[in-house]
Amino acid sequence: MNKTNPGIFFEDFRLGQEIEHATPRTVTEGDVSLYTSLYGMRFPVNSADTFAMDMGFEAAPVDDLLVFHVVFGKTVPDISLNAVANLGYAMGEFANPVYPGDTLRAVSKVIGLKENSNGKTGVVWVHTVGLNQRDEPVLGYVRWVMVNKKDPSAPAPETVVPDLDVDAGSLELTAPESIDCTAYDFGLAGSSHTWDDYEVGERIDHVDGMTIEEAEHQIATRLYQNTAKVHFDQFVADAGRFKRRLIYGGHIISLARGLSFNGLGNAFKLVTINGGTHANPTFAGDTVYAWSEVLGSREVSGRKDVGAIRLRTVAVKNRPAADFPYKGDDGKYDPSVVLDFDYTVLMPRRG
Amino acid sequence: MNKTNPGIFFEDFRLGQEIEHATPRTVTEGDVSLYTSLYGMRFPVNSADTFAMDMGFEAAPVDDLLVFHVVFGKTVPDISLNAVANLGYAMGEFANPVYPGDTLRAVSKVIGLKENSNGKTGVVWVHTVGLNQRDEPVLGYVRWVMVNKKDPSAPAPETVVPDLDVDAGSLELTAPESIDCTAYDFGLAGSSHTWDDYEVGERIDHVDGMTIEEAEHQIATRLYQNTAKVHFDQFVADAGRFKRRLIYGGHIISLARGLSFNGLGNAFKLVTINGGTHANPTFAGDTVYAWSEVLGSREVSGRKDVGAIRLRTVAVKNRPAADFPYKGDDGKYDPSVVLDFDYTVLMPRRG
Amino acid sequence: MNKTNPGIFFEDFRLGQEIEHATPRTVTEGDVSLYTSLYGMRFPVNSADTFAMDMGFEAAPVDDLLVFHVVFGKTVPDISLNAVANLGYAMGEFANPVYPGDTLRAVSKVIGLKENSNGKTGVVWVHTVGLNQRDEPVLGYVRWVMVNKKDPSAPAPETVVPDLDVDAGSLELTAPESIDCTAYDFGLAGSSHTWDDYEVGERIDHVDGMTIEEAEHQIATRLYQNTAKVHFDQFVADAGRFKRRLIYGGHIISLARGLSFNGLGNAFKLVTINGGTHANPTFAGDTVYAWSEVLGSREVSGRKDVGAIRLRTVAVKNRPAADFPYKGDDGKYDPSVVLDFDYTVLMPRRG
Repeated sequence: MNKTNPGIFFEDFRLGQEIEHATPRTVTEGDVSLYTSLYGMRFPVNSADTFAMDMGFEAAPVDDLLVFHVVFGKTVPDISLNAVANLGYAMGEFANPVYPGDTLRAVSKVIGLKENSNGKTGVVWVHTVGLNQRDEPVLGYVRWVMVNKKDPSAPAPETVVPDLDVDAGSLELTAPESIDCTAYDFGLAGSSHTWDDYEVGERIDHVDGMTIEEAEHQIATRLYQNTAKVHFDQFVADAGRFKRRLIYGGHIISLARGLSFNGLGNAFKLVTINGGTHANPTFAGDTVYAWSEVLGSREVSGRKDVGAIRLRTVAVKNRPAADFPYKGDDGKYDPSVVLDFDYTVLMPRRG
Repeated sequence: MNKTNPGIFFEDFRLGQEIEHATPRTVTEGDVSLYTSLYGMRFPVNSADTFAMDMGFEAAPVDDLLVFHVVFGKTVPDISLNAVANLGYAMGEFANPVYPGDTLRAVSKVIGLKENSNGKTGVVWVHTVGLNQRDEPVLGYVRWVMVNKKDPSAPAPETVVPDLDVDAGSLELTAPESIDCTAYDFGLAGSSHTWDDYEVGERIDHVDGMTIEEAEHQIATRLYQNTAKVHFDQFVADAGRFKRRLIYGGHIISLARGLSFNGLGNAFKLVTINGGTHANPTFAGDTVYAWSEVLGSREVSGRKDVGAIRLRTVAVKNRPAADFPYKGDDGKYDPSVVLDFDYTVLMPRRG
Repeated sequence: MNKTNPGIFFEDFRLGQEIEHATPRTVTEGDVSLYTSLYGMRFPVNSADTFAMDMGFEAAPVDDLLVFHVVFGKTVPDISLNAVANLGYAMGEFANPVYPGDTLRAVSKVIGLKENSNGKTGVVWVHTVGLNQRDEPVLGYVRWVMVNKKDPSAPAPETVVPDLDVDAGSLELTAPESIDCTAYDFGLAGSSHTWDDYEVGERIDHVDGMTIEEAEHQIATRLYQNTAKVHFDQFVADAGRFKRRLIYGGHIISLARGLSFNGLGNAFKLVTINGGTHANPTFAGDTVYAWSEVLGSREVSGRKDVGAIRLRTVAVKNRPAADFPYKGDDGKYDPSVVLDFDYTVLMPRRG
């Protein structure tokens, strides 16, 4: 009897199927320290218990993207072990804050299936929810991946493609009731810019660059218990297309978020992930820069102390981002672009 | 007066001598996070407080091999500073679980001495015990090393070779009384295979590979406060036999254990280390794979919820392990084999 | 409106100006683990709660230099973003111990200004204080840096050069009242040498060497939230003078302190930093060795259990330190010297 995990092949996914992912994980102060050391995070809400508690948090909450990576990592052995491509994610929504000591697990539901015309692969859409030890949601998102069939002769399932064409600008946005941004200390935060200061269409070059080392992305990806072998196995990579270990796309998201502090220093919390594309792969030795555009500015239901800004943050490699590299006239990404990330953040409003 | 540590030379060891090793160490959640990030550990007992507490642990216990490395590291400045070769270890036994916040120290007793015929070196056998802050044992093991004499003319001690020829299969095995594997959640653990499913002689290819970086093994080895200079000093290595920094053998043990999750996902606790050989050295850039063979299957005294399996886990470098590389017809290790590790684990039994 | 941090230019500094630095930071057990893993620290006071509490500490205090790096890191976005050179530091004094869970912030006061004759740069002296969550000082030090002017035509300020020519040997030294070194366990500490054993003029080769990897110094520097881009951006470095990422000077201080355990194992606490010079840059791949000289030996006010030793610790690269490389006859540093660090430590006295 084969004891190793074969993953799930396309023909084994069923619409409506619920998958309980393995390896619950207690997130600790140790994880937070590693996260800081890997990306140089400086958002004060996540950095200092005092700052967070003055705003009404129980303690410094765990960085939203660290929560994302931990939840995402759990889905890999089931969803992506036989995947040939990560096609996208959407409708991400952060719910309850996570504090050190909380234990996270993840469950996914299959919400779409579509066999490709080649009969060898298909696309699977899953809605994944991360839960804490009280079974409260901390994060939900939809992801779709192209997955191999084990047996090409297996019959195709009925095609169901979920409707993901939600206007992120129309979502109702809420902020945790317990927090109060009137107590936000802009001096300690290191940036004086409030929600009121950001205009739709405004673009910000985040200036700084960060060169990635093999040890760094491997340490990060293992921290998330993400075991996708393309990130770790140079022996196999030597025989592959890139000859290099591929860096986990989430590593770039966090790097870009870290760089974005310089210009978005008060964007203290992610509330939604509207979409994301890993436009080109990254490898150790690449230097990542980032820029952001303000896509929208929204009030938060019933709140005068905090507002929301929808952002596109674009990460590029091996060139500064001062001229905002993005897409060519043909609509294709510039070869330097490695990430196109659409998300919504909370920022304090001017008092 | 020389202030630096000269280590202990062969002629200074005395049979029955007890050595209190330096640097007690409080093991914390930070150490656990680093350990996860270095090896990608996914055994749920060590990953989630909830999972562990449902089984009767006080909290997620510290990984047994992290405990081993911390205890082992303490012995290095005394036992191995003047060592020319680590010859083996045996009779390892894990006792009380270690939780974050516990403080470990180590003591060793010299149980064997044998001068080599060249008069320049000798073999020392020590029995090392790791103790927590309540002086309760957490781990004991025997290790033997070849150590330099400082003065070749120093007289040879009486030869005493301890009897280590213990049949690991005959040891009485116990599981912590407080834990109850009937509450083990196979869904959350990610593997459905129980103790009952493993047959003696069965071999498992753990499939995945992991490439090691210099920063990773150095960070790991310093985490264990293991100061053996061969792991850290490239300047000295440049003039040496390998021209490379040698990776601490324990790093490979943990890597292999991490890889073994894929196939042995419910092997939640080590109870004994029966023997181990570092068959070939490893260096940064090497990609490690692993396979295991079930050497024995044992009941645990008075328990129906948990059983024990004796395993040989073999780590190989720079080639997959699907064909179970081990020894040639001449009885010598295949050049790809870097670790031959014989140990016993606990697994839940089918209810 | 430009949202990114422009730093402070020379003409914007005002004598007496107080700068509240951003990003308060809760120092945790996770930071301590990373610090251990980066430098291999073995001083038992910082390693074991039990050892520290037996001496009267509340728990294992955070390593003094980790506190220094965290405080220093906060000043970088304000003080050194437009700096062309770090010229020195002096009059460092450690105050209240820091424990995991404490939150640190930093404030600086401009105490000196001197425009250079070229009219393009000037020297700024700041006195920085690190404070905990109870606004108690944990560390104070003076640092001076050469900073660019933004507008060369801006008028020069009145020149004020602070008097830093303090005789470190004349400072009154105190030890925390709560601690009692009569309970210091020399066996567990791993070194039998007390304050009484060190003679002024004595030099100690710390023997061991440590090779630095890019991932290590980047992880360390980000852990300190020190964002100086010279440490992280290889793309920019490729076009620069060194073609390499510069290693944060504080990384070398901690490496040297870690190496100094071998010979100064009971130097359990820093009390002052009298001065420091980064004599040459270091890059990944360099192997660092260290030696120390005892510059002075002092009693501590009203204490018979603990004394103070003033040390010069010199770090060198890519050569052992057995012959104590330092300065040539011309008074210039040997090219191998990378750090000249003058500080005072506490050591237990013989009972």
